[in-house]
Amino acid sequence: MSGPESLLPSSRARRAAEMEELLAAVAALGRDLLAREEELPGGAARDPGQLAAALDLALPDAGRPLAEVMARLRAVLLATPSSSSWRFVNQLFAGREPAATAAAMLTPLVNISMYTFKAGGAQILVERELLHRMCAAAGFTAGEGAFTPGGSFANFLALVLARNEALPGARETGVAGARLVAYTSAEGHYSVPKNAGLAGIGRANVRAIAVDGRGRMLPEALAAAIAADRAAGLRPFFVNATAGTTVRGAFDPLGELGDVARAAGLWFHVDAAFGGSLLLSPEHRRLLAGSERADSLAWDPHKMMGVPLQSSVLLLARRGLLARNLDESADYLFQADPDELNPGRRSLQCGRPNDALKLWAAWQRLGSQGWVARLGRQMALARRAAELIRSDPELRLAEEPPSLNVCFEVRGRASDAVCDRLDRDGLLKIGHGIVAGRRTIRLVCSNADLGDADLAEILAEIKAAARALPPGDNAVAG
Amino acid sequence: MSGPESLLPSSRARRAAEMEELLAAVAALGRDLLAREEELPGGAARDPGQLAAALDLALPDAGRPLAEVMARLRAVLLATPSSSSWRFVNQLFAGREPAATAAAMLTPLVNISMYTFKAGGAQILVERELLHRMCAAAGFTAGEGAFTPGGSFANFLALVLARNEALPGARETGVAGARLVAYTSAEGHYSVPKNAGLAGIGRANVRAIAVDGRGRMLPEALAAAIAADRAAGLRPFFVNATAGTTVRGAFDPLGELGDVARAAGLWFHVDAAFGGSLLLSPEHRRLLAGSERADSLAWDPHKMMGVPLQSSVLLLARRGLLARNLDESADYLFQADPDELNPGRRSLQCGRPNDALKLWAAWQRLGSQGWVARLGRQMALARRAAELIRSDPELRLAEEPPSLNVCFEVRGRASDAVCDRLDRDGLLKIGHGIVAGRRTIRLVCSNADLGDADLAEILAEIKAAARALPPGDNAVAG
Repeated sequence: MSGPESLLPSSRARRAAEMEELLAAVAALGRDLLAREEELPGGAARDPGQLAAALDLALPDAGRPLAEVMARLRAVLLATPSSSSWRFVNQLFAGREPAATAAAMLTPLVNISMYTFKAGGAQILVERELLHRMCAAAGFTAGEGAFTPGGSFANFLALVLARNEALPGARETGVAGARLVAYTSAEGHYSVPKNAGLAGIGRANVRAIAVDGRGRMLPEALAAAIAADRAAGLRPFFVNATAGTTVRGAFDPLGELGDVARAAGLWFHVDAAFGGSLLLSPEHRRLLAGSERADSLAWDPHKMMGVPLQSSVLLLARRGLLARNLDESADYLFQADPDELNPGRRSLQCGRPNDALKLWAAWQRLGSQGWVARLGRQMALARRAAELIRSDPELRLAEEPPSLNVCFEVRGRASDAVCDRLDRDGLLKIGHGIVAGRRTIRLVCSNADLGDADLAEILAEIKAAARALPPGDNAVAG
Repeated sequence: MSGPESLLPSSRARRAAEMEELLAAVAALGRDLLAREEELPGGAARDPGQLAAALDLALPDAGRPLAEVMARLRAVLLATPSSSSWRFVNQLFAGREPAATAAAMLTPLVNISMYTFKAGGAQILVERELLHRMCAAAGFTAGEGAFTPGGSFANFLALVLARNEALPGARETGVAGARLVAYTSAEGHYSVPKNAGLAGIGRANVRAIAVDGRGRMLPEALAAAIAADRAAGLRPFFVNATAGTTVRGAFDPLGELGDVARAAGLWFHVDAAFGGSLLLSPEHRRLLAGSERADSLAWDPHKMMGVPLQSSVLLLARRGLLARNLDESADYLFQADPDELNPGRRSLQCGRPNDALKLWAAWQRLGSQGWVARLGRQMALARRAAELIRSDPELRLAEEPPSLNVCFEVRGRASDAVCDRLDRDGLLKIGHGIVAGRRTIRLVCSNADLGDADLAEILAEIKAAARALPPGDNAVAG
């Protein structure tokens, strides 16, 4: 047999044999990927044009033997940064819990969709267990929750639910005629205006409320903005407070902001995509004090908890809103079992991958006590980084880290140029952001496997790159 | 060392060792999962209450040893249906391309987010290659595309883009004051009204257009509905045609519907979440004739192409709309490389998992010619199933299958009761749906690994279950 048909196994048995052969190859390539985590792809591999040419990514007309496919897959993966490298501190997520990674690797082998118990079996129960536990951590004792495709969509879902509560009938008849206004901080995540654009509310109807010197939304500024919008005949309906801002890792004062929102009759949402994991730490959950009186809370375990992308939830203080605002009759889909076991009735998506098993596996490994220890280690790591920076005359700490984000400058060197240089040279993935009018390097201490020696190496790489650069300034035009 | 801290390795080296140990365990458990694919979890394992009790899914306070975690993970996965079992024909997706599964298993090991080339490296180039090729397949030679978290969100994105084109400024100021109307068929996917509810348009402003006897939207009914809405002072703006309906696998007449939409100045979207893969087949792409003149097309490779959930794209005929409607300035994120290499500027999501590599790997394995052979085999399988059913006096074929969905009844037995029985007994995951006023069993031939013998076994299981049931009727009250 030759030609393309020959690539198609003639029976289930042959196909299973191919998959079994691949399992060994996956383990072998996995080992190679782990072995190179001390390094990032760098040099020529960093140039998009050269990289594309070297990898030959074109989709062929004729198929290729399995071994060649694996060799090509290997080349592509080796040219991909690993977020578990100690050299990767560019995002709010980094590092891994091995049990979570193992569960994520196994999930495609069963490949079920999370809409019904009929299709998903035990996975639906796993997800229910997690949502129950996470609601309890948030203080939503009579709450409900849903996994969403990322934190932006958790915020989106909260916005839509709030919109439909403020404007009964909006789901059926649209928002025509309404002039809704939402509030977030000037340092809140970009998904808030983006989502307002998607939901028919309009980006221009999101107010960016001023922050204090530590990047926290000012409750009095929020109250004043709500009053001004009311006076102008608009309809304030939604306050987005942030627990762990993207650049600084700051926590808005949830208690005070919630009081303002409730006094004005607005939905109070907490974007804890980054900081929500700290709800599991008796020591650090005080940063989120007041979240238990929120209407909704977004939490991404894939950020601080070492769970592979993605694993995001929206938690709600009250039960019933998800089904009321998301359910569609789908006679061909929801055919067995009680609604409670068919989360497709409470999901943004129809077909939906399993984002729960990996978090469950990590929780089995660590236990709630292990999360406490892990989160404590991450917070301590950020404090330690701040100490190292403060005691180094070449560096300037922007502020005491509110959580895992350590923002600083190399004195006399432009932060963006330093980060670009480190990236181009394949030495460090690290980004920059503006803190109080200055462009700073942002070191996020999410990788729980880093130790003091790693921090010292990271800072040494940064200083070496900076020394090779001409002088530069970090003041940002206001 | 004891207590929770002992669960945290004290160094990166120890953590890497744990992951390496897990790679072997993943391969071993993977083999077990493959070995049991002849069977579905059934019997007591099918009962949610008994299953929850047997598995003990609670999240512990104290962590557990690695081996125990893997044993528990094994138990949970063995209690999960596999969509690659020949006994799983319940959804539009089934079966696997092994290379895609292998790539999906490796992806969590690098765990990068697809917003920037800086973070994603070679994966961004892989995704670009796929979008380019898929645009070409759709006939969008000057087009662009984006991966979305499922087909529902691909349809959502199309709806939002169309809304913003119809109502310039809607992204900024919302849809206040507009009375937009969208059109889909009475047998279109539920995401169309759902998305209208999310996007501020309103479910009530989606018209369900009548279909012909084969489940295809009637162009003259569409034209009449648009005219009536115009006459009533409303703003028609969006036509959703379906290429592969959920129950029947029917293809709307895209050429004629597109003519109606264009003549009226409406956005023409093709929901080809199910049927889009057939664009790769010279023989079968005629089912989608006219899609090349659409404004947008949704296509889920995870449905017909054996790619694990999820892998969905929205393709657009023209370039520029994605950035114009989705981009947010995010100074802390988009710091290097040209916009073209930072797809976060054109995505619904912020953090976004890699849904591209698995499709790329399968394409390397099969080549475009292999897809042709694979899709041909699936279509032939559906025709063969129809033949077997037609020639069996116990069965009644509802219609010649338009694509992969074969809808039929067991004479004198209620289709829903038959499906429930098969599910409860752990014999077959198969669903039912209404075709022309009768409740039918829906056999979807997406699993390319099935052969004639499997079809015969599936039908034998169905008839055996039906014989054990009392007589029943499938007429559905109109």
